[in-house]
Amino acid sequence: MIKMALMGHGVVGSGVAELFFKHKKDYEKKVGDELDLKYILDLRDFPDLEYSDRFTKDFDDIINDDEIKIVVEVMGGVGAAYSFVKQCLQKGKSVATSNKELVATHGAELLKIAKEQNANFLFEASVGGGIPIIRPIFQCLSANDILEIDGILNGTTNYILTKMIEGNSFEDALKTAQELGYAERDPSADVEGADACRKICILAALAFGKHVYPDWVHTEGITKITLDDVDCASKAGYVIKLIGRTTVCGNGSITAAVYPAFVPKTSQLSGVDDVFNAILVRGDAVGDAVFYGRGAGKLPTASAVVADVIDCAKHIEHRRRLDWDDCTDATYVKPISECDAKMFIRAKADSTIADKVKSAFGTEIFAEKDGVVAFFTNTDKESVLDEKLANLDIVSKIRVLDEI
Amino acid sequence: MIKMALMGHGVVGSGVAELFFKHKKDYEKKVGDELDLKYILDLRDFPDLEYSDRFTKDFDDIINDDEIKIVVEVMGGVGAAYSFVKQCLQKGKSVATSNKELVATHGAELLKIAKEQNANFLFEASVGGGIPIIRPIFQCLSANDILEIDGILNGTTNYILTKMIEGNSFEDALKTAQELGYAERDPSADVEGADACRKICILAALAFGKHVYPDWVHTEGITKITLDDVDCASKAGYVIKLIGRTTVCGNGSITAAVYPAFVPKTSQLSGVDDVFNAILVRGDAVGDAVFYGRGAGKLPTASAVVADVIDCAKHIEHRRRLDWDDCTDATYVKPISECDAKMFIRAKADSTIADKVKSAFGTEIFAEKDGVVAFFTNTDKESVLDEKLANLDIVSKIRVLDEI
Repeated sequence: MIKMALMGHGVVGSGVAELFFKHKKDYEKKVGDELDLKYILDLRDFPDLEYSDRFTKDFDDIINDDEIKIVVEVMGGVGAAYSFVKQCLQKGKSVATSNKELVATHGAELLKIAKEQNANFLFEASVGGGIPIIRPIFQCLSANDILEIDGILNGTTNYILTKMIEGNSFEDALKTAQELGYAERDPSADVEGADACRKICILAALAFGKHVYPDWVHTEGITKITLDDVDCASKAGYVIKLIGRTTVCGNGSITAAVYPAFVPKTSQLSGVDDVFNAILVRGDAVGDAVFYGRGAGKLPTASAVVADVIDCAKHIEHRRRLDWDDCTDATYVKPISECDAKMFIRAKADSTIADKVKSAFGTEIFAEKDGVVAFFTNTDKESVLDEKLANLDIVSKIRVLDEI
Repeated sequence: MIKMALMGHGVVGSGVAELFFKHKKDYEKKVGDELDLKYILDLRDFPDLEYSDRFTKDFDDIINDDEIKIVVEVMGGVGAAYSFVKQCLQKGKSVATSNKELVATHGAELLKIAKEQNANFLFEASVGGGIPIIRPIFQCLSANDILEIDGILNGTTNYILTKMIEGNSFEDALKTAQELGYAERDPSADVEGADACRKICILAALAFGKHVYPDWVHTEGITKITLDDVDCASKAGYVIKLIGRTTVCGNGSITAAVYPAFVPKTSQLSGVDDVFNAILVRGDAVGDAVFYGRGAGKLPTASAVVADVIDCAKHIEHRRRLDWDDCTDATYVKPISECDAKMFIRAKADSTIADKVKSAFGTEIFAEKDGVVAFFTNTDKESVLDEKLANLDIVSKIRVLDEI
C-alpha cells in the first residue's frame, strides 16, 4: 500500500480529495497497488466530511511519518508551502504540486533536492490547469529542439478580453468576471500578468533547461487595453490576447515575456475564448503542436495533480528524470528592448502624421477616429522602434505576433 | 550504453535516423546514458549515407543480438512487421512503433507479451503523428474517467474537405492532394476511412481499457460528400469534417465509429484545416482538452517515435505500465443503428415534402436548390430515423455532432 498526504483543503485540495475517493479503485488498478490518503493538512475544521478523521493541523504528523511516500501540496504561496515541500523532499518523499509561484520561484532548488533524494517533484497542474502540457513537453516532445512557446496562460484575462471583443469595457468585463468567480476581488495578479509570468517561467525552464526567475521576465498586463484597440485589431484581422512567450536565441540566451499582443485570426490561439487556455509549442521536428483546455477550476486542476500522484505511485522507486539547471545570470533572458518586434500603434493625429509614419516605418495609417490614427510599424529592434516613436504622441502600443 | 535497431528506412525511418544522429548528444543527456543505433534493417541499399555501415537485410542480426534492447518498427503493415515485433518482445526487447495497423490489429496480444517480458511496447506515433496524444491520455488524464474522444485523425481527408470548403470538387481536391504528396496514388485507405478507423480503435482501447478491432467499427469515408453538402453546412453554421468518435455507454459497452459529420463552427475542431489533425478528449474532471498539430509527415512522426525511444531508454529496466485487455466480444461496440443521432438530410423535393419532414421529425426545411431540399432531423435512435427516412428520396445523409 502506498500512503499519501494532502496539504491544503481549499478549492483544488478538496477537488483532489473528491477525485481520490470517487475513483480510488480505478487509480489502484492503474498503479498496481493499494492507495491510502492518510492525512489532510488544513488549519480549518471540516467536521462534516466522510473523511473528516484524516484531517490534521500539524505538519509534523506528515513529515515524521515514514509511511508517507507521496505528498500533495495545494496550499499555494511560497511561505509554509515552500518550507513544507522542501522538508518533504529532503526526507525522500515525492511531491506533486499545483503551486506555480513555488515552482517558478524555487523550482531549480526543489528539483535538485528531489534528484539527490531519488524522489519525484511533479507539477503538471502548475501550468494550464487540467491541460496536459508539462509531461508532453518533457516526454512526448523530447526528440525536438523546442524553438518557441506561446501561450494563453491565464483564464481570467482571456475571459475579460473575450468580453471586450463583444463590446464590453475592461471595467465591466472585470466586474462580470468577479461576479462569476473567474477573477479574485484583488485581480492584480491576473490582470497585471504576474500569474502568466510564473507560468511562462516554468515552460521556459522546461523547454530550454535553465531556471528563469519571474523578475527577469518583462511583464505587461491588460489594464491599458481599450475598446478602440480591440476594434482596430479586428479590422486588421487580429484579436488581442495576453500572451506568455519564450523563444530560443542563437547565442545561448532566450527571450521570455508576457504582454497583450495582436494574434492573427488565422492562428489556432485566436479562437481560444472565455476562460480557456491554450499553449502552442514549436519544435524543430514536430512543427507546431497546440494544447487546449480549461486552465483553471477545481476539478480540472485537481485532475492534473492526481495524474502526477498516479505517476509518482507507479514509479515510487524510480524517479522521473525531470530536471533543469539553476541559473544565476539574469542576462540569460535577453532584454526586451534588444528583441525584434512589430508594433500596433495608435497616436494623436497632426497634419503631418501620415508623412511621419511613412518616413519612420515605411507603413500607412489604416484607421482614424476622434483625432487618433492607427498604424503598424515595420519589424525592428524594440529600442530602435521606441526611439522613432518618441517623436509621436502615443495613445496605445501593442506588439504584433504575425507568426503564431 | 543502450543499443538500438531501426526496422525500416522509408519516410518515417529515415526521419528517425536523421533526428537520432542530429540530436544524439542531447538525447544521451536526457537518458543519462550513451545511445547507439547499431542496425538499420531494410531490403534496399543506401550506400551514400554517413551511416551506411549500419544497414542489414537480415532480421536475425537484430533478434539474435542480446545487446539490442530497443527496436524501432516503422516498416508498416501486419506481415513481417507483426512477426518481427512479436519476436522482439518475446525476447524482452522493447519496441517503439508508428504502425497503427499493427497496434489496432494486434495491440492487445503485443501488450500482453510486453508485460510478460517486462518490456515496453510504445506507439505514440501511431495516432496523430507528432501530436502528443497517447501519453497524455494514459498518463496526464489518468485521474479522469474518459467519457468521449472525437478526432480529426486523417490529414489527407481533412485537406480534401478544406479544399472543398474553398469550392473545389472532391475529385479536384483529391488530385491536388496527390500532387502535393498528401494522398497516395491509391487513396482508398484515407478517403474510405480505414486509416482513421485504426486510430480511433487505438484511442478507444487506451481510453476504455479493452481492445477494439477495426472490423467492429462502423466506418464511412468522404467520397460521397458533395459541394452542395458543404454549402448547406456552412449556411447552417457548420463545417464537414471526417470524425473518428468513441464514447462510453452506461452499460459497459462503448460506441466507436468513423464518419463525415457536421461540426459546429464554434467547436475547436472546426478550425482545424489542411493536413492538420486534432483530438478532443472529454474527461469527467478535466472537461474538454484538445490536442492539435501535424498528424503525419516524416519529421513530426519520427519525433514521436524517438520520444518513445527516449522514454524506453530512460526506463530500460522498469516498463511503463501501459495496458489494455483483449476483447473477444464484438457487441462491446454498440451497433451504430442503436445509437442516438441527429442527421442532416438532403432529399428530392415533392409537393408535400415540407409536411412530411414536419410530421416525421418536427423540423423545417432550411434550404432548397434544384429540386432538392435540406433539413435536419430531430435526435433519435438511428434505426428509428432510418425507418422514417425510408419514405423519402434521400440524396445525402450526414450525422450532426452538436456537442463537440
